[in-house]
Amino acid sequence: MTTSASTSPQPTLAELQQRVEQLQQQLEQLQKKLPEDRLTMVVFSGELDRVLAALIIATGAAAMGQKVSMFFTFWGLNALRQQKRLRGKPWTQKLMTLLSPAGPTQLPLSKMHFFGAGAAMLKSLMKQKNVSSLEELFQLARDLGVRMVACEMSRDVMGIDEQELVSGLEFGGVATFLGDALRSRATLFI
Amino acid sequence: MTTSASTSPQPTLAELQQRVEQLQQQLEQLQKKLPEDRLTMVVFSGELDRVLAALIIATGAAAMGQKVSMFFTFWGLNALRQQKRLRGKPWTQKLMTLLSPAGPTQLPLSKMHFFGAGAAMLKSLMKQKNVSSLEELFQLARDLGVRMVACEMSRDVMGIDEQELVSGLEFGGVATFLGDALRSRATLFI
Amino acid sequence: MTTSASTSPQPTLAELQQRVEQLQQQLEQLQKKLPEDRLTMVVFSGELDRVLAALIIATGAAAMGQKVSMFFTFWGLNALRQQKRLRGKPWTQKLMTLLSPAGPTQLPLSKMHFFGAGAAMLKSLMKQKNVSSLEELFQLARDLGVRMVACEMSRDVMGIDEQELVSGLEFGGVATFLGDALRSRATLFI
Repeated sequence: MTTSASTSPQPTLAELQQRVEQLQQQLEQLQKKLPEDRLTMVVFSGELDRVLAALIIATGAAAMGQKVSMFFTFWGLNALRQQKRLRGKPWTQKLMTLLSPAGPTQLPLSKMHFFGAGAAMLKSLMKQKNVSSLEELFQLARDLGVRMVACEMSRDVMGIDEQELVSGLEFGGVATFLGDALRSRATLFI
Repeated sequence: MTTSASTSPQPTLAELQQRVEQLQQQLEQLQKKLPEDRLTMVVFSGELDRVLAALIIATGAAAMGQKVSMFFTFWGLNALRQQKRLRGKPWTQKLMTLLSPAGPTQLPLSKMHFFGAGAAMLKSLMKQKNVSSLEELFQLARDLGVRMVACEMSRDVMGIDEQELVSGLEFGGVATFLGDALRSRATLFI
Repeated sequence: MTTSASTSPQPTLAELQQRVEQLQQQLEQLQKKLPEDRLTMVVFSGELDRVLAALIIATGAAAMGQKVSMFFTFWGLNALRQQKRLRGKPWTQKLMTLLSPAGPTQLPLSKMHFFGAGAAMLKSLMKQKNVSSLEELFQLARDLGVRMVACEMSRDVMGIDEQELVSGLEFGGVATFLGDALRSRATLFI
């Protein structure tokens, strides 16, 4: 592409100036394509252990100065629930609501669930070891400015009313997620 | 590394030209190391909800102009099945085939499966809300030029004949996946 | 930002030299923000099929010249066990220990587990097809210099003593993981 120095004819000062300006422009273009100091995650799972892992990574990254976005979709929306409502839903959505945990305190474990005993045991061990609870980590994430987006499409399909979710969320779709993911240093699907 | 302007001796025009050319070469090298406009995913799971999430992200990214690659491995291969064949397989692979879903329409849900009722309910809700079905999303992904690679090693181990999978797939291994992942803006393991 | 060549006044050789030096510095700064030849993963799952996938990707990437880091957390720690110890643990941690697999040879499958028959079948098929076993892949990963870090916090919460894990591990937290992830070409959560 570039001719080697030995074969190039001697340029004038004005020609060289022009090349330097082209380089400057190329460099600025390149800069725009670099990943930002940013971490993005999809929280697809609604299990206590996985949501905990997501929040520990999110708050850790935010504390290290990264911009962090969490996109809650499918079962992950259960981690954002504050109540259950049945009124006005078709029976399929009523059934899904009834079978879903009523909020972050009721999320199951992905292993050793034992009808809730596993999750209770994990929470008790976390308390003994002074590890922050899910609720505390959620609050910390919000305090650190973690962007929390609830997937509009899965909210609609699963029949979760906006009032069933905690306040202060954004609603968005796959384009919202991709907009952040494609300029991130790391993207996780949890 | 660089000497500061104040201490550098005045260069000749030829010397300066040489430095500009070196810069140009460094910049071109740097450009090659930048992530491309590309998204890569491993589809390890063979569950309806997870394969749906993968396809929604894949088609969304392709529609936004990204090159997208999906590597189907382990249970993810079940999403690519078009038929089951037993002939000529050892009994272990026959058993695995019998226990596998016969294609994308039979994929289970990762939660609330209830012997297929959960998946049927989700599909019915998606239809009501005008969300594309798995089959439509697969077709859309192909129309948008999403690269679909089936993992050769897990196909071989699980005893899935090439004829059992839909046509138009590539076959590859971990090097194929990494070749795309390492130059991507984001890589997901689903 | 940059003035176009046509309107810029003719610079002196010294002025042009200064601009070239600024460009050089900008380029060096940019270089530091590029992702390294590096792949990082969280191994959260303790299932044979998922740990296998993680190790196949890790050894493949290391063989291709990438620096690779694996962070084992939650159930993933079970893949690093070499023994079980109960002495001195509270009953909750004793119970967790009893219910955990005793090491990589006892990891369950995520699907078709059937009380261990599924995992045995997969291992037998892998052997027939000359695919390396989990133990061989672990050894290969170590030989290739893959960095293996056990999550200190989940080790503490789940009550796994350091002696219960294989030797030669590092212990670290979310900051250790993020330190590697944020400079990687790809990061996976498995």
